[in-house]
This record gives sequence, C-alpha cells and structure tokens, in this order.
Amino acid sequence: MREDLPLSGVRALFFDVFGTLMDWRTSVAREAERILAPRGHRLDWIAFADAWRAEYQPGMEEVRSGRQPFAKLDVLHRRNLERFIPRFRLTGLSEDVLAELTLAWHRLDAWPDVPAAMVRLKTKFWIAPCSNGNIALMVDLARRNRLPWDAILGSEIAGDFKPKPRVYLAACEAFNLAPAQCMMVAAHSRDLKSAAECGLRTGHTARVNEYGANTGEPAPTVPVDVAAKDLADLADKLGV
Amino acid sequence: MREDLPLSGVRALFFDVFGTLMDWRTSVAREAERILAPRGHRLDWIAFADAWRAEYQPGMEEVRSGRQPFAKLDVLHRRNLERFIPRFRLTGLSEDVLAELTLAWHRLDAWPDVPAAMVRLKTKFWIAPCSNGNIALMVDLARRNRLPWDAILGSEIAGDFKPKPRVYLAACEAFNLAPAQCMMVAAHSRDLKSAAECGLRTGHTARVNEYGANTGEPAPTVPVDVAAKDLADLADKLGV
Repeated sequence: MREDLPLSGVRALFFDVFGTLMDWRTSVAREAERILAPRGHRLDWIAFADAWRAEYQPGMEEVRSGRQPFAKLDVLHRRNLERFIPRFRLTGLSEDVLAELTLAWHRLDAWPDVPAAMVRLKTKFWIAPCSNGNIALMVDLARRNRLPWDAILGSEIAGDFKPKPRVYLAACEAFNLAPAQCMMVAAHSRDLKSAAECGLRTGHTARVNEYGANTGEPAPTVPVDVAAKDLADLADKLGV
Repeated sequence: MREDLPLSGVRALFFDVFGTLMDWRTSVAREAERILAPRGHRLDWIAFADAWRAEYQPGMEEVRSGRQPFAKLDVLHRRNLERFIPRFRLTGLSEDVLAELTLAWHRLDAWPDVPAAMVRLKTKFWIAPCSNGNIALMVDLARRNRLPWDAILGSEIAGDFKPKPRVYLAACEAFNLAPAQCMMVAAHSRDLKSAAECGLRTGHTARVNEYGANTGEPAPTVPVDVAAKDLADLADKLGV
C-alpha cells in the first residue's frame, strides 16, 4: 500500500473472528470429544460442531429482530446447545458438563498464519476483533493464540449483532475514527458488504476450508478494497 | 498470596489509570508546553495541568448526576479545557490547537514501575483498565507505555463514570466473573471504597507524588485486601 493510495488513510483493522481467524469447526469437535467421550458418548464430532454452528444465525436473529433482548454470545451458545443436542441423543447431561461444553468456543485454535501476521499488522494499525463473540470469549481466544489486541470491540459493546450497522459503527467510535479510517477484515462477503454500507473499508481473506475442504469463499462475492489469500498475504498487501 | 487465602479466588485485576498508573501531572504540563510555548505562550505549566485536573470531577458529576448525557472523557476534557483557559489568558487558540491540547491526555507517561509489573501481573491475572478514560485514550496510553491489556473496560463500556457502581460491575460482567473474583487496584481510597461496596476485592498502591511531592495517600484510608507501595510491590504481595 503506497502512501498515495486511498487506503493510506486506514488507521485501524477490525476482524471477524469465527471462521476468519479461528478454525471453530475442528476445535469445537475436538473439545466436544474431549468432554463427552470419557463419559461414554460416541458420535460424529464434526457433525456435532456443525449442528451447533447451524443454530448460530437463528439464535442471533432473535436479538437482531428485537424479539429477544441482547444477550452475550456465551448465553446464546448455551441456549443453542440445549436446542440441538437431543438430535444427538445426548440427554441428562449435568449442568457442569453443559457449562464446560459451552466453553468449547473459548478454546478455538487460530488458523496457522494468524498469530504472526497479527503481530505484523499491529505495527502499523490499531487492531481489534469486531466479532459477535463476547469480551470474555475474545480474551480467552487471544490468550490461547497470542493475539495482541488493542481493545475488544464488537457485539458486546454495541449491544447487538453483526451485520447490524451499530456493531461496525460502535467499533469506529470507540477508536475515535471515522468509518473510512477503519477496515473490516473477514472471510465472509456478507460481513464485508454490511461494513462497506456503513462506510468502512473492507479486506477479504479466503478461508476455503472453514466447513471442510473447499467449502469457503475462495474470493469475495462483493466489491472489496483488498482481497487476500490469508492474513499474511493481507499484511503484504497493506504494506506492513 | 498462598492458595489457602481467600484472595486465591481473584482472577482479574482492574486498574485505575490517572494517578495510579500514569503521572498525568508532569505529562500534561510537558505536552502543554510543547504545544503552546512555540506559539509564544509563557505560563506555569504545572499550574495549567492542575487547573485542568480540577475540572475533572465537576465535569463527570454532570453525567453521574444525570444532568448531562454520558460523553466520553475526551469530550469532557475538551469542554473542561475551554472552561479554565481564560484564567491563563489563553484566548483565540485555533481549533487545531485545542484539539491537539486535548490529546495531551493520550500522551501520559506511566510511573516507572508500571510496565514491567504489569507484564508480571498478566501471567497470573486477566488485566484491564477500569478507568474513567475512554477506549481510544486507553489504547494510546497502552501503546505508549507497552501495557498488555486483555481488554479495555471502564466508563465507556458502562456509560457512566466511577465511582458509580455500574462501572465496576460492568467490568466484572464483561469478564464473566463475580465481583469477588475481581480486584480493583487504585491509589485513591474513594475508588476502592466504592469498588468494595460492589463486592470487589481491593488493592491500594501508594502514589505519594501524584500532585507534587508527598501529596498522595501513603496508605489507604479505608479497609483494603492488599496495600502496596507500588505496582511491583503489589505483584510481590499477590504472589506473582
């Protein structure tokens, strides 16, 4: 990125987390097996992770639509868990086990390129997650994966969930920046489209294996300012 | 701190910032001189810093009392600046100069013991500012002084100012912790008294030179869980 290009005005990068930075699918499957297998449960752990994730958007839509008051994602993850586990014949799990399972989302591993690239990006930009995950969840992920966030922004400070405009705009305001000085980075075009509609710059990182081999977007399906094959490539393209 | 003591349940430390971690007085005086002296102004820079700080509690009280809606501290600092500068015969300053002066509060230096002690404390506790300063201000201070916060909590996420209970409780909730699992650390007994009333643990660090030699509290004037002579001493006493 040369200083004479329009992107030279970008001061902060906001990151989508689930899918873009974190391999939630194999991580949740691993955690579910770690917790449930010793208790005698045998099931398709990847299908379990996918079933949990399938409740994600419907759960948040209850809040976005105004039908439910805002609740942090930990609360929604727990509610969603209880909704789908009967399909896996998991009944009679204790409160302790349900609570421990919910924390699976606090123990995700980042895609391998993420930690080193984030350290590079921080030398030039303010960096923060702008995720639908809550603050404590983001702190656990940051500590596990050594992500040097400047602050934890996103749904919990906004009181709503992406792609509602308030979430992107609250992040810009927290950093005292105009939307055009901020770039949303995500592997999902829907997230970037909504951020762009709020005036933010956008960066796409391909995560083609999010739901298994070759399931993710290899390239954005909407106009973006930068398209990269991963976070290291994004750092290269932003001139870090 | 031995594991059999009640404080072994403390998981997070919340920090007051102005005075407790930062030497705001000589820093603001230095910044004011840097900005105004080249423009031909000669004044008592320490008196200037003190005058600005004297507007701090009255400005926040407008919000705490409900007479004004919440505004982030950058906004209050600017409003307070315009309130006291006529007394220094500073009139006709341009918008650029007023904006640059307001950023003096983003350029504070930490007391010398703070950065290294904070790195130690982070190995055992989640750490966050619980300050009346806003998020962008805290990020600038963290970058300048290399403070490795897990998150930026405090007034901006609470929508009110200490010592209102909401500010302490919002910090605990953001970390998914009960108040008894959190310790407020401050050089000011009033802050600790309010935190304790919300159920938090409390740690006092003496900052005897906050307003000049021997002006600060050498020891707490209220009951606290830990009293330390500085942040390194606090880390020792918390068994880090």
